[in-house]
Amino acid sequence: MAENHHEYPRMLGALLRIPFQAIVTKIEAGLRARGYTDLRPAHFVVFQHIRPEGSRITELAERAQMTKQSMSELVHYVEAKGYLEREPDPRDHRASIVRLSMKGEAVNNAAREIIRQVEEEWSNQIGREQMNALKQGLMAIIRVIEVENSNQ
Amino acid sequence: MAENHHEYPRMLGALLRIPFQAIVTKIEAGLRARGYTDLRPAHFVVFQHIRPEGSRITELAERAQMTKQSMSELVHYVEAKGYLEREPDPRDHRASIVRLSMKGEAVNNAAREIIRQVEEEWSNQIGREQMNALKQGLMAIIRVIEVENSNQ
Repeated sequence: MAENHHEYPRMLGALLRIPFQAIVTKIEAGLRARGYTDLRPAHFVVFQHIRPEGSRITELAERAQMTKQSMSELVHYVEAKGYLEREPDPRDHRASIVRLSMKGEAVNNAAREIIRQVEEEWSNQIGREQMNALKQGLMAIIRVIEVENSNQ
Repeated sequence: MAENHHEYPRMLGALLRIPFQAIVTKIEAGLRARGYTDLRPAHFVVFQHIRPEGSRITELAERAQMTKQSMSELVHYVEAKGYLEREPDPRDHRASIVRLSMKGEAVNNAAREIIRQVEEEWSNQIGREQMNALKQGLMAIIRVIEVENSNQ
């Protein structure tokens, strides 16, 4: 936290967060250009964390590191705009499962296309070699994280 | 979005998001170990985006890519726990400015220490050379983003 003070060298948290947030901003602009004008960055966490077979809201909140109340509000909005379908949770009749609708899947495919374009643009700027080194480094860290998580 | 399906190569968005979220999880555990047991990852965005001289809630919401309502709820919680001070905005008497309290600054310093430890641990795992290449790549992308933003 407080990694955002430019007078100091940025810490690893901010070095990861700033490019990630820039991608999110570009996804919003790209979706808007494709006619999806009712989605804000706040809503993207629903799409990022929902599983193809559907997810419970408590699970989405946990994966997105948000409170259940905040996630519930986001899910209600995204559902009302037609991007989600909801059905009862067969394992718990008080809970429900949400999954992407056809419209939600179309947004997801558009977002993937936008991310590919951003990577291409950045790769042109910093060079293919540095982009590959960056991705290799990120994948190496993700492998470390996965081993840590599997040991818990 | 939907970058989280392991059967496909992960896209750049997920490659950045997964390590960032892991850092956030480690900050939460480290703060809890230091006695700050009332802060969840959802609250960290307040600390990440607040300026030393104080910030308005609308500005915090924009910088964190959240709705004003969600940010307002987070700020109220963090303030109630003693991490923030609030004063009237001299430029707009209907608005207020929040800034970190002494307790909030202590949390920030603890978070910086935790991030340094995480970087050290990951660096030991993937090697100093790959960590440096990763940070150079992230800094190169951040420079591209800053040029893009200054041209808008």
